[in-house]
Order: sequence, then structure tokens, then C-alpha cells
Amino acid sequence: MAPIALDEGVEVAKPQRSINTKSATEETGEQVRLAARAGKYTSQTSGAAPTYIQANFIVLPSRYAADFRLLCRRNPVPCPLLAESKEVGRWDQLKSWVDGLTGDQIAKDLDLRHDFPKFMVYENGDLTKAHCLNVEAEWTEDHVGFLIGCSYSFENALASAGLIPAHTAHGRNAPMYRTNIPLCPAGIFKHTTYVVSMRPYRRRDVERVREITRPYVATHGEPIDWGWDAVGRLGIQDISQPDYGEAPVAMDGSPLVEGVGADDDELVPVFWGCGVTPQEAIRRVKPEGRVIGHAPGYMIVLDIRDQDIIPKQ
Amino acid sequence: MAPIALDEGVEVAKPQRSINTKSATEETGEQVRLAARAGKYTSQTSGAAPTYIQANFIVLPSRYAADFRLLCRRNPVPCPLLAESKEVGRWDQLKSWVDGLTGDQIAKDLDLRHDFPKFMVYENGDLTKAHCLNVEAEWTEDHVGFLIGCSYSFENALASAGLIPAHTAHGRNAPMYRTNIPLCPAGIFKHTTYVVSMRPYRRRDVERVREITRPYVATHGEPIDWGWDAVGRLGIQDISQPDYGEAPVAMDGSPLVEGVGADDDELVPVFWGCGVTPQEAIRRVKPEGRVIGHAPGYMIVLDIRDQDIIPKQ
Repeated sequence: MAPIALDEGVEVAKPQRSINTKSATEETGEQVRLAARAGKYTSQTSGAAPTYIQANFIVLPSRYAADFRLLCRRNPVPCPLLAESKEVGRWDQLKSWVDGLTGDQIAKDLDLRHDFPKFMVYENGDLTKAHCLNVEAEWTEDHVGFLIGCSYSFENALASAGLIPAHTAHGRNAPMYRTNIPLCPAGIFKHTTYVVSMRPYRRRDVERVREITRPYVATHGEPIDWGWDAVGRLGIQDISQPDYGEAPVAMDGSPLVEGVGADDDELVPVFWGCGVTPQEAIRRVKPEGRVIGHAPGYMIVLDIRDQDIIPKQ
Repeated sequence: MAPIALDEGVEVAKPQRSINTKSATEETGEQVRLAARAGKYTSQTSGAAPTYIQANFIVLPSRYAADFRLLCRRNPVPCPLLAESKEVGRWDQLKSWVDGLTGDQIAKDLDLRHDFPKFMVYENGDLTKAHCLNVEAEWTEDHVGFLIGCSYSFENALASAGLIPAHTAHGRNAPMYRTNIPLCPAGIFKHTTYVVSMRPYRRRDVERVREITRPYVATHGEPIDWGWDAVGRLGIQDISQPDYGEAPVAMDGSPLVEGVGADDDELVPVFWGCGVTPQEAIRRVKPEGRVIGHAPGYMIVLDIRDQDIIPKQ
């Protein structure tokens, strides 16, 4: 198969709107998961089943699993490991990596080959399929699936504090960017960098945004950087051209640009670690064999909720 | 008190030789600790009590403790948290942060105010005392002491594999450098960067060095970068001028320079996360109040050994 150039990726920057018309607040994680499994939920999941935890995905040949666990342990902000296949090849049961939770509690009725709205497939590090609805044909008995925390999980907490993310308010996918911030290497995973998600906020609100997201250590926690200066520090060339997801908007839906509002009212970008980081590692490291990921923004929704993953004081 | 400019630091680049003349292999961690407490062991500790785990130190006013624990959790490679004061103000007992170990197992006979060969004291983020022998007068009932893993802990494993670090072979302190690699922020600890330690190795040995140090996740684990290109990537201006410790040498004791040896035999710098990183954060963040650290390279030596901190497979 010829590799697909993700940067030209047909669907990457195309708006994806929810096809689910019922009130989001009625949904459970399991309902979204079953709808995705049935091929009925095919949209991005920001705002889906509020308070239910969402997760990123990476599926690796088993020989890379130990190095990947170590990569997560060394880089818990972009790669907070929630769970993995209970055994090599298993797509229907999880082993938990979250203290105090079992795999069954995280997600009981489960099919990792179907339960994300859309998937990506890599062969030898090259993207060969983008935005496919399932990976039943691609999953092998040698694959291990990993679930990584997702920042969509704290968007409800932000919204409840009157700080709804602009992309959620407009039913858009979050903008995500490659950066020049290195991951701490682990075995085969070396010389690779963070992917970040971005939500714009008024400068006066940044400290509250930090406080609200800080307890969500299993889903990236507080931002890694913020402000217009951060764009350069992270090595992002053009804020209007994300590498994954959709272009950023302000709360009124207009494109995000520098200089809107003055002083503490100025809208500034705020960046979080992003669970697309493992897919970026695959593209850099190009390990032999087949790797599967979710389509960025098209997450699995789990049975656990906000309060289940916030560490007790 | 007038702050001391660390960059002019009288003792920072001065060679420090061990005053302990007995064979290092006879020492236990407790012996080194008691000798430091008595003011008899005042040298850097690379090579001291081989196989015993060494630790970095930071002592904070209790109001910063929660943010600092989170900083460690988010940045476990430069800041692997081993233990802290059992209660606020306690300098004689530890609470363990290492799975399967108690505070008493980590170090039983303990006086955090005396058991490092040398200390540093900061007031409002400015260094006010350097290389003092104890901090009995500086420690208050509101202080919490934190022990952070140290890369000296895996130097014996490297030596046993025929890869003795050049600085250990020559009885020198390791060279340590500030970098431009950002830490993931946590509360008050923001906009601060990694400090790294460096050991030079032949290019052909780097993969073995990575493998040998990889299991030591509680003491920085495998390197974060390597090769002459890494010097620029990390933002290090001049490899011959470390910010802490002593100037780097090759195995023959000559200054480390680029271009010694050809191809796979070329000597290249290898960089690890370093537990001086929290002191760098204090210098950047300048929190109000008194902070205490160890003098870089002058570590506490604990009762636990190599095998106690390597996670079971």
C-alpha cells in the first residue's frame, strides 16, 4: 500500500459535526461506544457524554509494548496511560493502570476494534488508512491496545465553571499541533516530540483554567504552556494551521488571531499535552509492522467519570 | 543577606577529592551518612558506597509542598520523588514514595539537616549560603524535605559492565548543565527547565549505556539525549563550562572535546535528567521564604541498594 501523506489528509482539516441530535447530557459513555461500534456515531467526540472519561488509542505489535509502557511512565503529561489489552491480542477486556480502578470498571462492554468513531492505520510508520470506521481486519493476535487519557475529559469541568472551550461551543474538533518539545526517550521511542491541544482563553482566566484542569492528572492535567509567546517556544509555525483537528476559533466563531482584546482581556492560546503524541512517535520512529491509532479527536468514551480519576487528597 | 551569584560560585568548579581513604566497596550508605553528619565526609559522593542509592535534596516551606509533589509526578525523569519528611518539620523520619518500600527502609538513622556533605540555602529564590556543612540553624518547623533520585545510583552498574563514567574514574564531580528543555508546570513551578548530568561514552557504547540505565526509573533512568548534536538541542552553550559540578574529562583525564576518535569510536556526550532541577526551579520561580538544597554532587547516601528500586518485571 502506498503511504498517505497526512499533511494533505483529506479529512484532517474538514469540519466534522456531530450526527447525534439528542441532548449530550443524556448520553453515557457506553451509549457513545455502542453507537460508534454500530457505525452510527462517526463524528468527533468533544462534548459527547459529558463527565465520562474519553481516551486516545495506540495499538502496537507486542514486541514494542514494554518500551511503550516506559515511554508513558517517563512522559505522563502527554501520555497518561489509563489501560491496555488484558492480554496480548485481546480487544474485549482491559488491564487498568489507574490506581483503584479495574479494567472492567474502566469499560466493560468493549470492542477496541470498533468503539472509536474513526481509526488510523500505519504500516512501518507510514499512514496507510485514515478515518476508517473499524479495524477488525487490521487487528491481529499479536496486537496490544493502549488507552491514553484525553483532555476532552476535563472540558465539562471547564464549561461548568463558565469556561466552555471555544471549539466545544462551536461543535468543532480541537486544534492540535506538533511541537519541538522532546519526549524523554524509552527504548525504540527516541527523538520524538510532544503533540499539544489548544484552547484559547482570556489572559485573566488562565490561572483559573490551570486550577480547574490541575487535578486531572490522568487526562493531561494542567496546561504545559500559554500565551502568544508560547507559540514560538513550542515551535509552532502558524496557529491557524493545526497539524490535527480543526483550525482554532474565538468564542464568537471567528478565526483566532493575536491582539483581540487588551491586557488581561486579550485572548491567548493555552496548550495541553495531547494523546496524539504516541502517533507522532510512530511517524518519527517508523517501527516495523502494523500500528493502529484513533483518528485525532475521535475518541473512545469510557464507563468511568470525572470523579473516578481525580486522586483523593 | 546579600545573594551569592552562583555563576561566580567559589566552590562550584573547584575540584573536590574524597577524603575517605578506605576502599569504597567497604562503605555502607549509613556509614557515609554518619560521616557526613559528623562533618568528616565533606567531598562529592560519586563512587561513594557503591550499589547504595544516593539522593538529591530540596526543602520547601510547607505551603509549596503540594505543588512540588505534582511537579515531580509530571516530570518523573528529572524529578523522581523517592521520599519526603514523614510530617511537616520532621528531619529524622521519611515517608516513602517508592512502591514496596517504607520510609525506614529507605533510611533509618537519619538527620536531613546534617547527612549531606554540603548544602545550599536560598532566601526568596536567591542563593545566600553555598556549600555549608549543615543546615541545623536554617531548618524550621514549617519545612518539608524531599529526596529525589540521583544518577550516581547507577554508576556502579555502568562500571560493572566495563563502562565506568570518566568523572568517577578520576574522582571528580559530574558536569551538570542548565538546558532549554521545559518542565511541565505544576502550580507555582512554571517556566522552568531541566538540569542534566553528562557522561561521555564512545558512540558504539551508547545503546548499552541506555540499556543498563533504563531500569533505574527511580534515579533518572535512561539518558534523555546523546551525541554532539544534543548539545545544541539542549541549548548548552559550552560543554567545557558546566553550570554545576566539574568540567568534563575523557577517560584519559584530558578535557572532553569533539572529534576524539572516529565514527563509532568517537567519544560523545550522553545526558541524563538531574535532580538539581528543583534548585533551578527555585532560582527561576523565586518563591518567598527559605529553601534548602544539597550542594550539587554532594548527595545523601541511603540504606537501600540497586536491586531495591528496580521495578520487578
